[in-house]
Formats: sequence, C-alpha cells, structure tokens
Amino acid sequence: MTPDAVPPKIVLGSASPRRIELLKNLGLVFEIWPSDLDEIVEPGHTPSQVVAALAESKASRVQTLIQSRGGELAQSNHVIVAADTIVVFEGDILGKPADRADAIAMLSRLVGHSHQVYTGVHILSVSGHDSNKTSNSGLSYHGVEIASVEFRPLSKNEISTYVDTKEPMDKAGSYALQGIGAFMIDKIEGSPSNIIGLPLVLTTKMLRQCGVKIMGE
Amino acid sequence: MTPDAVPPKIVLGSASPRRIELLKNLGLVFEIWPSDLDEIVEPGHTPSQVVAALAESKASRVQTLIQSRGGELAQSNHVIVAADTIVVFEGDILGKPADRADAIAMLSRLVGHSHQVYTGVHILSVSGHDSNKTSNSGLSYHGVEIASVEFRPLSKNEISTYVDTKEPMDKAGSYALQGIGAFMIDKIEGSPSNIIGLPLVLTTKMLRQCGVKIMGE
Repeated sequence: MTPDAVPPKIVLGSASPRRIELLKNLGLVFEIWPSDLDEIVEPGHTPSQVVAALAESKASRVQTLIQSRGGELAQSNHVIVAADTIVVFEGDILGKPADRADAIAMLSRLVGHSHQVYTGVHILSVSGHDSNKTSNSGLSYHGVEIASVEFRPLSKNEISTYVDTKEPMDKAGSYALQGIGAFMIDKIEGSPSNIIGLPLVLTTKMLRQCGVKIMGE
Repeated sequence: MTPDAVPPKIVLGSASPRRIELLKNLGLVFEIWPSDLDEIVEPGHTPSQVVAALAESKASRVQTLIQSRGGELAQSNHVIVAADTIVVFEGDILGKPADRADAIAMLSRLVGHSHQVYTGVHILSVSGHDSNKTSNSGLSYHGVEIASVEFRPLSKNEISTYVDTKEPMDKAGSYALQGIGAFMIDKIEGSPSNIIGLPLVLTTKMLRQCGVKIMGE
C-alpha cells in the first residue's frame, strides 16, 4: 500500500458483543455484518481445522451478503474479519450450549480441570469493483490461536446458580472469561483476547497486512 | 455464622473502576470507600510484602474513615475489601506512572519480555458496635496472588500512540489487560482478574470465610 492510499473499510463478520468490544479496543471504526451461519462441526476434523473452516465460512458468507446488497461498501476496498471459537476438553469439541441442562452438563465436565480454547480468524481483503464488473478480487489471511483455561472445582449449586445468570447461554464452553465466569477461573495460559473470542495480537498482524493502520502503524 | 445470621455489609476500599467491575461480577452489592492512601513502597521489602502491606494499610485506613464517620455502617457487621497491585520486572517494582514520559519509559522496558503482576488482598471483618462502645472487634484475612504477562515487541510509535490514549496513566505498569492494552499482550499465565486488580477466586474464598454468600454459597 502506498502511503496515501485510501485505507480499506473494515467489516466485522460477527454480532458477538465481545468481538465488537475487542475490535473497538484496537481503535478501529467498522461495520457489523453478522454471518448468521449455522455452526456445523464436520466430523473427523481437528479442532484447528474446525475453527479455521468455520471462520472462513463466516467471512465468505458475509462477503456474499455484501455483494448481494451492492452499494458503496461492495464497491470499496474492504476487509472482512471473521472468527470462530470453540472449547476442547478430552478430545470433545464444545460449542455453545443448547439449553440450561446442556450448559450445566458442560460446566460439570470442565470444573476442576484444564481445557483448551481455539479461535480461528479469517480475514478477506477484497478490492472494490465498479458497477461495470461483476466480481471482486481478493486475498485471504488466516490463523488459529490456542489457549488453556483452568477452572477451580465448583459445587452443583454454584454451577446452577451461574447458569441461571444466563451468561453461559450464548458462549462456547458455557462461560465468559471476562464476565461473571471470572469467579471460577483459577488460571489461564495464553492470550485473554483469544479466549474472549478474537486474539488481538494475531488480528492486528493480519489487519496490517491488509493495509489497516492500528495504534499508529 | 448461623444460617439465619444477617450477612455483613460489604465495603470496597478502592475507587478503581476495574475493581468495582470485578466485585460486581460476583453479584455483590457494596459501598465504595476510596482509601486515598499514598502508595509508598518500603525499600527492602519483597514484592509480596509490598502488596500485602499496602492492601492492609488501605483496609485499615477505610476502617478508620468508617469509624470516624459513625452512622449505620460503623454499627453494622461489615467487611472491608482492599487490594494493591504492582508490576515487577527485573527486580524493580513498577507502580502507576508519574507522567507521560514515565509511562513510555516503563512500557519501553516491558515490551518483548515477561513481567510479573502481584496483587495483595486484605479483608477486614468488623463486628458492629452500638454507640455505647468505643471500639470494634474484627478479624483480618490476607492473600497474595502472582501472574505473569508477556508483551509482544512494540515500536516506539506504537508505545507513544498507546500512551496518548491515556489508558496507561492510572494503572500499575502503565497498561490495562482488559482495555486497549490487549493489543500487545501475547500471553498471560495466571488469573486475569489478578492482573486486572482483584483476584476473584482468592477474594471469593476470603469473603465466604467472612459469611458473605457468593454464587449461591
């Protein structure tokens, strides 16, 4: 990118309030386009493959939505940031809980142990086209980061009281690191932003490759 | 404490928005009494001794303020939660930066390396007295938790841009884990709430010893 090039518009392909907050922390202005993707886990894939594939699908889905909507964004240079986070325990992939009982079952497995958190980030850098062309050209960047989280032991009563706060219901692994869930987190090893849903050191590196300026660079 | 005993009132001896937020995450209702203590580090003390002593001084100072004010709180059973957080790098204790240049100097030392974060928690459990008595009886609980934080390397420009956000100015070590500072955190090892300023697993354990109910227990 030349110094006076217009920086690309940024699109976050997620409606997650945690990811919105994290991306705002980088000082960026961006549009929010939820991907509304069914998070289907392909059997036989490793955790890294799962989050990489889901993040890529979300980014592609958002790009399709942007193109079908048309308008200024579709015609501008833009980057789409998408991410997917899962919890892995004893080889099982834990996504968002289906209901209260599922959240209690997930947490009952996780307490007193360490589990892994995988976040895949996929960024599509798309060159805008004028209305005479029918397609965009683009580059994609992807990365996966892993962290580990250790929960203290919890009683059944503590688990059900926590689940009743509703915080676990829309979160992979049925907890939030930065919210009420902090009361049970003994220790983490890795990047907190990864566990929350968007690893910021990795995302900064990827966005800069797309010509996005972050923290003055 | 018998099952039908009145739970003690809770006082947070800190005006830190991070500590307020963390204590709220435990679902507690509490009063905020800043200790307004000059954080003087005694030479020759270990980091653990420093945070333990400062947390104790803050708790005692708040108890003195409560007693001198008198009124309902002074006469009720109450617990005072105080904490102190420092950053330790190459044997040096780093508190809050004095000014912009100090914040830049601190961060310039920390980037590309790991440092330790120490938080001391001191809880005073005070029995209320009626107006005929002149003193309170109380028990104290204390603990120290340590975590390590690894920063990625940063350019001078990134450091000064970050300092210009003003976020570093009122924080030990000149950064916030949960704020804009997340853009430079490669990895932590320990409890995130400890690094933010109030280790919640430890604090929960201590508050329960004082008869405070948390998460149903």
